[in-house]
Amino acid sequence: MHIKKGDIVEKLVNIGILLSQEKNLRKLLNKIVEEVINFTGAEGGSLYIKKGNTLHFMVFKNRILEERVSPDLLKKRIKKSSFEIKGTSIAGACVKRGEIIAIPDMDRVEELGFKYDRRMDKDLGYKTKSLLSIPLKGPQGEIIGVLQIVNLPEGSFEKEELRLARAMASQAAIALSNALLLDELKNAQLDTIYRLSRVAEFKDRETGDHIRRMSLVSKYIASAMKNDPDFIELILYASPMHDIGKVAIPDSILLKPARLTKQEFEIMKTHTKIGAEILKGAETPILKVAYKIALYHHEKYNGTGYPEGLKGYEIPIEARVVAVADVFDALVSKRPYKEPWPLEKTKEFIVSQKGQHFDPVVVEAFIKVYDKIISLYQKPGTLYSNQDLA
Amino acid sequence: MHIKKGDIVEKLVNIGILLSQEKNLRKLLNKIVEEVINFTGAEGGSLYIKKGNTLHFMVFKNRILEERVSPDLLKKRIKKSSFEIKGTSIAGACVKRGEIIAIPDMDRVEELGFKYDRRMDKDLGYKTKSLLSIPLKGPQGEIIGVLQIVNLPEGSFEKEELRLARAMASQAAIALSNALLLDELKNAQLDTIYRLSRVAEFKDRETGDHIRRMSLVSKYIASAMKNDPDFIELILYASPMHDIGKVAIPDSILLKPARLTKQEFEIMKTHTKIGAEILKGAETPILKVAYKIALYHHEKYNGTGYPEGLKGYEIPIEARVVAVADVFDALVSKRPYKEPWPLEKTKEFIVSQKGQHFDPVVVEAFIKVYDKIISLYQKPGTLYSNQDLA
Repeated sequence: MHIKKGDIVEKLVNIGILLSQEKNLRKLLNKIVEEVINFTGAEGGSLYIKKGNTLHFMVFKNRILEERVSPDLLKKRIKKSSFEIKGTSIAGACVKRGEIIAIPDMDRVEELGFKYDRRMDKDLGYKTKSLLSIPLKGPQGEIIGVLQIVNLPEGSFEKEELRLARAMASQAAIALSNALLLDELKNAQLDTIYRLSRVAEFKDRETGDHIRRMSLVSKYIASAMKNDPDFIELILYASPMHDIGKVAIPDSILLKPARLTKQEFEIMKTHTKIGAEILKGAETPILKVAYKIALYHHEKYNGTGYPEGLKGYEIPIEARVVAVADVFDALVSKRPYKEPWPLEKTKEFIVSQKGQHFDPVVVEAFIKVYDKIISLYQKPGTLYSNQDLA
Repeated sequence: MHIKKGDIVEKLVNIGILLSQEKNLRKLLNKIVEEVINFTGAEGGSLYIKKGNTLHFMVFKNRILEERVSPDLLKKRIKKSSFEIKGTSIAGACVKRGEIIAIPDMDRVEELGFKYDRRMDKDLGYKTKSLLSIPLKGPQGEIIGVLQIVNLPEGSFEKEELRLARAMASQAAIALSNALLLDELKNAQLDTIYRLSRVAEFKDRETGDHIRRMSLVSKYIASAMKNDPDFIELILYASPMHDIGKVAIPDSILLKPARLTKQEFEIMKTHTKIGAEILKGAETPILKVAYKIALYHHEKYNGTGYPEGLKGYEIPIEARVVAVADVFDALVSKRPYKEPWPLEKTKEFIVSQKGQHFDPVVVEAFIKVYDKIISLYQKPGTLYSNQDLA
């Protein structure tokens, strides 16, 4: 490896810090392979994640190939695949043994008892000369993935060098297992929010589709407005709770299969304040945003909404986003008292309300991601068939 | 520091792994200070966490003092305190400068412009000779805490040694910032679960106290049954959702201020199955346990409960725990149709149901933590005053 001995501790620690900064799993995986290539001076590297008895191919990087082969061809050749863990593949054996597998000369890989598919090398005009397969171990010593490095500089297979590679992989594994844990916890939280939020709609709807779709539509719109992962994630997580206050609305109003009287509607309107009551005073970012959304998602841009009649930018941005998503989903859905609107008509309506009901900026974002939005309504397993939406 | 140069990379990496194993914040803080003492060969160490403009004193360890002074005296002398971050204290300056502060000779600490309180040394018959104050930096370079080490071996203040101390602190900081993030996320999740679970009870109760108390009672009982943090945490997180199915019960039954008729009670009973319906099919551990609790928390140990009439150990353990906590809290609480029961009478009732309604093992655990349980009902801010419970 092409680093000075004296720098090694610093280098390793810095890689640890650098990797621990990245909480986004996808980005982290890329960063790990990049750093490993830099650290070892190898030509390329790849990373697999282990789930059960399967290895999932996650990242492929190769600085030689990236110079020589068009990204398109590279993409086509490198299929992100998964395969069963078997002792006959190098990565599989690495998992099974829980140890580094070092192959200084790939021409002799079969002599070591491994099967190796040379087709990709052939297709790309590349030669894999040497390979290092390193297990990534989670905190309890369990294997969470495999890091592979190809075409390493001379001397890389010395004992001391392999120790460094192992140390490097340790830093990567710590960051990776933390990111996986975080990811799991976030998924758990989102699932909990979806399920518990459905509760408010349990009486008047058949499925939780509205909540899920509406939070995804909100997310798509948000992502077209700001390239800020935190903003987008907060909207995704907080928007499902927008109607939570409906639990306090009497059945006679909530379930009425006809238009509400003026008086009934006044009671229905209180679901915004009741929702805010349930969510208020929390210290967590998600619940703080959920509070604003619950309270203000029925405000209108021109000031004619409720509960406070806020205008324009007085309405929190998260509520302005959710307002569009909520109305869109409500219109294209069937209700006891109405038929679903066709998608195109609904889009026209949303656009016609630009500057009236809705923030023009949000409507612009909605138009930008419209194709992505309607794909949610065309997937099997959602509430309505394509025909319903036609 | 008393380690061989050749081992340093391995040592550092191993410390990183060791620390990343510990997800419990309190235990991690202790482990960090222990490992730092081992790594540096110092006599003692302490750790502060930064929150806003305050440093919170979290851990104190000193191997000399621990041999010489009784744990009681040590505990008395070392007050876990917090103080404002000021440049005149060593730890404060360490935060402000974001750099290691090295004081090889504490007799001359005032010459460096620091105030230093020697009273604790005097009280304990100890002499703080040298001190190293190291900032712990989060992934974005922000200071999250301070690590202090006292009475280091000779040579510890050489440039190379300080670099190692910094490297060690980096490993600690990565583990710490991950644990803090995890902690925050878990708190967020629990808060979300509490708030959204209240929804099922929003109509018929004034506050969310029942949900919170009942999940804490469940946790206390669980902790007396199994010394397994995962089991205890799952019960804490999943139990609030036990009555979520009540959202689907018509107002006329849910809010009836009198005893239910047999027919109404049959409808009321369906809240177990409806709750299970809402929670079923999830992949996350919390929701899996929540599913079991929602479905089975009205089963009775002798087989006379609902919905399935399961008996004894056929009832999932989590549901057997929650059954006791739920009945206990319901009895000592006021309801539109009943006065609160006195605590002692309620306890006697629970005990009398040992082997009938309740699992004997759970009742034993309930008795073990009874004092802890009733303290929940005697805190100001809970639903009932002590008098109500007398």
